[in-house]
Amino acid sequence: MSNRQIVVETLPTGELTEGHFKLKNAAMPEPDDGDVLLRTILMSIDAANRAWMQGATYRAAINPGDPMPTYAICEVMQSNSPRVAVGDIVGAEAVWTEYLTAPAHKVQKMPKVPRLENLLSVFGIAGLTAFHGLVGVGQPITGETLVVSAAAGSVGGFVGQIGKALGLRVVGIAGGPEKCAYATEELGFDACIDYRASGMFKALKAACPDGVDIYFDNVGGPILETTLALMNERGRVVCCGAISQYETDTPTGPRNLPGLVVTKRLRMEGFIVLDYVADNPKALRALQQWVQSGQIKTREDVVEGLENAPKALIGLLHGDNTGKRLVRVGGDPA
Amino acid sequence: MSNRQIVVETLPTGELTEGHFKLKNAAMPEPDDGDVLLRTILMSIDAANRAWMQGATYRAAINPGDPMPTYAICEVMQSNSPRVAVGDIVGAEAVWTEYLTAPAHKVQKMPKVPRLENLLSVFGIAGLTAFHGLVGVGQPITGETLVVSAAAGSVGGFVGQIGKALGLRVVGIAGGPEKCAYATEELGFDACIDYRASGMFKALKAACPDGVDIYFDNVGGPILETTLALMNERGRVVCCGAISQYETDTPTGPRNLPGLVVTKRLRMEGFIVLDYVADNPKALRALQQWVQSGQIKTREDVVEGLENAPKALIGLLHGDNTGKRLVRVGGDPA
Repeated sequence: MSNRQIVVETLPTGELTEGHFKLKNAAMPEPDDGDVLLRTILMSIDAANRAWMQGATYRAAINPGDPMPTYAICEVMQSNSPRVAVGDIVGAEAVWTEYLTAPAHKVQKMPKVPRLENLLSVFGIAGLTAFHGLVGVGQPITGETLVVSAAAGSVGGFVGQIGKALGLRVVGIAGGPEKCAYATEELGFDACIDYRASGMFKALKAACPDGVDIYFDNVGGPILETTLALMNERGRVVCCGAISQYETDTPTGPRNLPGLVVTKRLRMEGFIVLDYVADNPKALRALQQWVQSGQIKTREDVVEGLENAPKALIGLLHGDNTGKRLVRVGGDPA
Repeated sequence: MSNRQIVVETLPTGELTEGHFKLKNAAMPEPDDGDVLLRTILMSIDAANRAWMQGATYRAAINPGDPMPTYAICEVMQSNSPRVAVGDIVGAEAVWTEYLTAPAHKVQKMPKVPRLENLLSVFGIAGLTAFHGLVGVGQPITGETLVVSAAAGSVGGFVGQIGKALGLRVVGIAGGPEKCAYATEELGFDACIDYRASGMFKALKAACPDGVDIYFDNVGGPILETTLALMNERGRVVCCGAISQYETDTPTGPRNLPGLVVTKRLRMEGFIVLDYVADNPKALRALQQWVQSGQIKTREDVVEGLENAPKALIGLLHGDNTGKRLVRVGGDPA
């Protein structure tokens, strides 16, 4: 049996290209006592993959030759533990590979859902990141105005829909008219500003007549700088990502920082979804309720084939996805 | 009777000079019903005076021709209200002037203290700003490491001394060897880094072997950028001021923002002392206890004469004060 996997052959300093990756045939892994052998079905593709290539963060640095880490939905093929049975569908910290082993206590058994894709979108890291960031960090109050960047992306789309469900005015920022139309027409945002068009500041100001109380920031850079200028006193900036800064060697800081944080008494706070794991059951209950009521719509953007994972990540960094991006490595269980 | 006052004749765009101010003789104000007539004794000189000249913030913009706002300790000369008596010493939102009127309900009666100067330092805005910023925003835990910039300034000096009283490791940042010696030898900081010397990052890193848990930022700019790089996960940045950014038309943002806020899950939070007014009695009780025990030493840097207020502010912006800067406008009551 072959076990194809994709390694990071060299670390990028500027723009990420397919040349930084290499497809190779690895050995078929053997599960130890207490381990399970997993077959990868779906892998989550995230801007964070690129951030991890910049050095150690909340996880260890990726070194040349390492396979790319990911979170994946897998089928249990062999189990040396009573915790998990052959045929179970589990979520696991994995890598870009067809087969892997993991300690059984480190995989999460997944609930039955109509479509496995949902496990990596609304009921996965994207939905949980949106929920914990907006609710836990942003602390929204009905009637406030929320701005969210990368609005047609997976996290951004859920943030806006949760915001609407909680009674906020929701204004998105996205690249291009199609994505803006998707946010307003399909996801129900009150407005969505195209940052590629001219006059973004004016357009955003017009869309936020009462100012901005919460900015859910996925991008950093000039869009953060522009939105900060419209924040209300005691506003909150949920710092979820800085996608605009990942592919540059000369990052630019928002010139109004920290000045506006002082004069407007803003709170800027970073978080990762793992910080809020204790609140996951509450978050999942709320998300299920909103999916059932139709207040949250899910959309996945599935790229077929392990070999296309680099292309899927590079495309994501250029903003070519609408909805949660996944790579399908193998078929659903029969 | 004359009533000298100093107005902002033109708004600065770059460096503030004495030419931006004008001394003039204003009319002697007449207190209305419910008002008091006040004689200014001591005025607080703060970097915030310069920030207010950049446009509207938490207070209205200063316009050309306006006298400079300040907080002052005053003697009540005439009272048209039963709340306040002639001869009382009060604190008031004032301007750079010898005499002013104010609604009696807007002035604060001051407690008896050995030296009126203390009312504008440890028991005034500086001491309260240090307390509320460090305790309320920074949420310190004994054993953590605190870094504070403008360490020999008034707020910075109190922040560090409160930090020591609470059991923190305290590292200051200040300009020049004299100020650093003042922080360590007189105020009891564990270390103080001279930002004008070369190798600041290395020196700060060596002084913080366990990383930085709280950064009390009075300066913004490159010192913020450097300190952010040394923050621990879940660290807190207390955004109190951005003195490095007030005198430039081309402010620079820290290039590692918001990236490090995301990956380290930092919280950056601005505040002004007025937000915490409900906690002032608790703060003053703690400050009094520390002054009595000798854990907080106070030092005021008093410039004599209303006419020298512009010079006092300009000097402060260039860092030539040690301890809380005040201007004495009139003598203590007999």
